[in-house]
Amino acid sequence: MSYAHTVTVNVSFDEAVRMAREALSEQGFGVLTEINMQSTFAAKLGPEAAEAVGEYLILGACNPALAQRAVTADPGIGALLPCNVVVRRHAGAGETTVEALDPAIMAQLSAKPEIKQVAIEADARLRAALAAVLAGAAQ
Amino acid sequence: MSYAHTVTVNVSFDEAVRMAREALSEQGFGVLTEINMQSTFAAKLGPEAAEAVGEYLILGACNPALAQRAVTADPGIGALLPCNVVVRRHAGAGETTVEALDPAIMAQLSAKPEIKQVAIEADARLRAALAAVLAGAAQ
Repeated sequence: MSYAHTVTVNVSFDEAVRMAREALSEQGFGVLTEINMQSTFAAKLGPEAAEAVGEYLILGACNPALAQRAVTADPGIGALLPCNVVVRRHAGAGETTVEALDPAIMAQLSAKPEIKQVAIEADARLRAALAAVLAGAAQ
Repeated sequence: MSYAHTVTVNVSFDEAVRMAREALSEQGFGVLTEINMQSTFAAKLGPEAAEAVGEYLILGACNPALAQRAVTADPGIGALLPCNVVVRRHAGAGETTVEALDPAIMAQLSAKPEIKQVAIEADARLRAALAAVLAGAAQ
């Protein structure tokens, strides 16, 4: 079972992060949170753990209008928000991976019908953002 | 289907946030991110949306050792991290709700067996944190 939409691009980690941010913004997603797993692991677990995880960023993307509809339909849905977009690259890898959590998971987990509709719309926007990253990297 | 563990406590929103942070810390979770949905909605959607959502905070909790095991087993699992803990209270409500994403969802969605073990351990810690919030509020 897959829980994310994934693209791999032949650009640097930093360039992939820049492209992901831009593509998310164009699709109406603000990036509300950012977790640098590599620096978190370096601080908490030491340099070996940081090296093993590689460059690894979790961007918490939120489209406010969609989030509002979701929270109105199911007040607890915040446990599944924001929608995470991961950018990651291992030290030895030639490519950078960009992947977005599949919003269909929200629809699977919530009993509220409106969540399904919100998930469909979020999914279309996240797929468009990933497609833009892919297209941008191919230029 | 439930996707979160939930407790309701008869304390103020701010007190519930304080207790949740303390309980998470005691269980080895750092709070890496924090989203104030009410102020986000106020800024992006206006005062009516902010009032409707009520006091609403999403804490992104991460136990570094568990996160490392999870990412080592399934590099894409960051799309499901950190583990969200929501604290929320509607304007008219007499109680505050504290709920943690059920880590079993990770185990359901990932094909990697190690994720199941990490989820069991994360689940025990999150349940203990919620129990501590409940016990603290009852004092």
